Amino acid sequence: MDNLDLIKKISITSPTKIVLLVIDGLGGLPHPRTGKTELETASTPNLDKLAAESLCGLIDPVGPGITPGSTPGHLALFGYEPVKFNIGRGVVAALGIDFDLKPDDIAARGNFCTVDSSGLVTDRRARRIPTEKCTELCRLLDEIKIEGVKLFVRPVREHRFAVVFRGEGLSPEVSDSDPQQTGVAPKAVKALNPQADMTVDIANNFVAQARIILAKHQPANMVILRGFSQKPRLPTMGEVYKLKPAAIACYPMYRGLARLVGMQLLKTGPAITDEFDALKQNYADYNFFFLHIKGTDSAGEDGDFDHKAKVIEEIDKALPALTGLQPDVIVVTGDHSTPALLKGHSWHPVPILLYSKWCRTDRVGEFSETACILGGLGRFPAVQIMPLAMANALKLAKFGA
Amino acid sequence: MDNLDLIKKISITSPTKIVLLVIDGLGGLPHPRTGKTELETASTPNLDKLAAESLCGLIDPVGPGITPGSTPGHLALFGYEPVKFNIGRGVVAALGIDFDLKPDDIAARGNFCTVDSSGLVTDRRARRIPTEKCTELCRLLDEIKIEGVKLFVRPVREHRFAVVFRGEGLSPEVSDSDPQQTGVAPKAVKALNPQADMTVDIANNFVAQARIILAKHQPANMVILRGFSQKPRLPTMGEVYKLKPAAIACYPMYRGLARLVGMQLLKTGPAITDEFDALKQNYADYNFFFLHIKGTDSAGEDGDFDHKAKVIEEIDKALPALTGLQPDVIVVTGDHSTPALLKGHSWHPVPILLYSKWCRTDRVGEFSETACILGGLGRFPAVQIMPLAMANALKLAKFGA
Repeated sequence: MDNLDLIKKISITSPTKIVLLVIDGLGGLPHPRTGKTELETASTPNLDKLAAESLCGLIDPVGPGITPGSTPGHLALFGYEPVKFNIGRGVVAALGIDFDLKPDDIAARGNFCTVDSSGLVTDRRARRIPTEKCTELCRLLDEIKIEGVKLFVRPVREHRFAVVFRGEGLSPEVSDSDPQQTGVAPKAVKALNPQADMTVDIANNFVAQARIILAKHQPANMVILRGFSQKPRLPTMGEVYKLKPAAIACYPMYRGLARLVGMQLLKTGPAITDEFDALKQNYADYNFFFLHIKGTDSAGEDGDFDHKAKVIEEIDKALPALTGLQPDVIVVTGDHSTPALLKGHSWHPVPILLYSKWCRTDRVGEFSETACILGGLGRFPAVQIMPLAMANALKLAKFGA
Repeated sequence: MDNLDLIKKISITSPTKIVLLVIDGLGGLPHPRTGKTELETASTPNLDKLAAESLCGLIDPVGPGITPGSTPGHLALFGYEPVKFNIGRGVVAALGIDFDLKPDDIAARGNFCTVDSSGLVTDRRARRIPTEKCTELCRLLDEIKIEGVKLFVRPVREHRFAVVFRGEGLSPEVSDSDPQQTGVAPKAVKALNPQADMTVDIANNFVAQARIILAKHQPANMVILRGFSQKPRLPTMGEVYKLKPAAIACYPMYRGLARLVGMQLLKTGPAITDEFDALKQNYADYNFFFLHIKGTDSAGEDGDFDHKAKVIEEIDKALPALTGLQPDVIVVTGDHSTPALLKGHSWHPVPILLYSKWCRTDRVGEFSETACILGGLGRFPAVQIMPLAMANALKLAKFGA
């Protein structure tokens, strides 16, 4: 039996409330000068006080040594096995721009690229054309007509775009046209199973028309596509946990992921305080809240150690707005580590605190990577957070007699 | 998706180097007089210094409570699920004597045994005849001719030998002739599936001829066979991790296991310092080194607490030869515990340290069973070591978008 099947069997409704605060890219690495991570450098009296009343630990989002993308990192936090529910690049691209993907739509991630006079790819990213240029070219490609299918071409950022094919009988079982290298021609899209023949014709027809339209738009004179995929049919959080869940997130990607697991998307302004306000405004209407803060990850990706620490301090200042609501269960963690020293996501386990009246606290009195090593939760896979949160909210019945 | 499949998808080549130092049977139990284990008794300034700069923890080679043989213990260290990739006794026996097993060979582990005048087994080990006698008898059995098959009979130690059948259409799906008890006759080998009929005839023919040859060689007047098996087709470490791996080990069993996962075997003398020298000599030519030290396990098996501590001190003295090479990642651990007090392998988790520039160290400043309990790696399955080492060597790409 799959973990979700078990939880679905024993989950029960109750008036208790759970708040999951995700500080994106929370985990870090020690600054060579001070030996302290971003979280350890930031002054966080409110998080530390909450940690003292909580059970602490470290999570592996996907597994030890595995550096997660945002999608698997969040799926694990929501309790979905991230390796089992791997989501295609096309779908991730569409979610990332808030595109309203229908169940049978086929989405692909596209690059504007450069080909030479013999049709060989010379730059897979078309010199990273500005997003404005990408938007203009997407508008041209969006006019392409193919019989039996409606298509949508939408800009993402720089040379990146998403294309969505909507129609009857389409299949995601087709290969990439992206050759993943320069000096060769884009590949023809091919069927990975016989039911996909029609989709292959449509995809190759799209590429052929795009080539003609883009011919005079050097360096963006061609497209390459990859990650053809369909929205996965995930059981919703309502079905699995019998929760009424809501999401507070500014970035489209995280809103898209939240929608994928059946959360209601709440309106929020862009500031951290706006997001905490949104929690307060909607607190009566839901019993599970996913509150996502992006700034920590962005600062980590930029290699800006000090700014990442500063964002953490801002979150700490806003925290009483959350704790003041007295949720039955509070979880604070991240979807992965983003150490400023590595300027990107990493495999390092992420600190977590779980507060509830019933958590049986440990001796950790500080929310940090080092302190959480000695926490009562130990080191554990992130997919186990939701069952723990549910149990602490008294929302899981006994298993077996 | 299996763990190795995932790693295979995301592993990348890079110039970094990993050294895995395996101190066989490292973990121990406290001496009743001092309350300290072998590792805690030994003076290990170099290991302690390295531990202070590393991330520490405890590994379960197969699982909590499971005492591993050398084969599953090492497979787990190399990242192969030891329960999934279970290797037959016959193959282990052949690997243990450095026999060059071909992919279709069938190997079985044999015992010389004693049968009485009615053919009932009276001693399954023929009074543990000396190895010289075993060698002499194996030479006689090696002369046995069976049509359609070439056979090899090779001594192991005392009453133990290995027999290998080479030919077309053989199958390992046959039962043991070893009855595993005295007072009964050796069993006839039987087919476990219809394709194995020919192998059954060959095995029973071998046993019948051996009985005649051995008739006057009391107490070794008969043979019993078990663990018919074929070399498993493991994906190599080159395929999974994209590493160029090399092994430094004196004992044939460990050399055989290393060869099984595609490592290059390096020449080395028998002393600990010889092995560290071999590492230095070959350091430029590989990017993964498995360095195996046997003395700790042998001392543990002999129940010689003091000698085991002494071997650990010798390793500690040699360690600067390894750290001086400045590998990007150093892992020091064991394949299982061999407490002198138990005179054998045991289920106790094994201390581990993982050093890298990116390891995010903990507060453990001493390499010992007790100190490692509080390490940042926590307690975890040994199969997760390789992904962690790969991540710390920056040899794993991001999983998912």
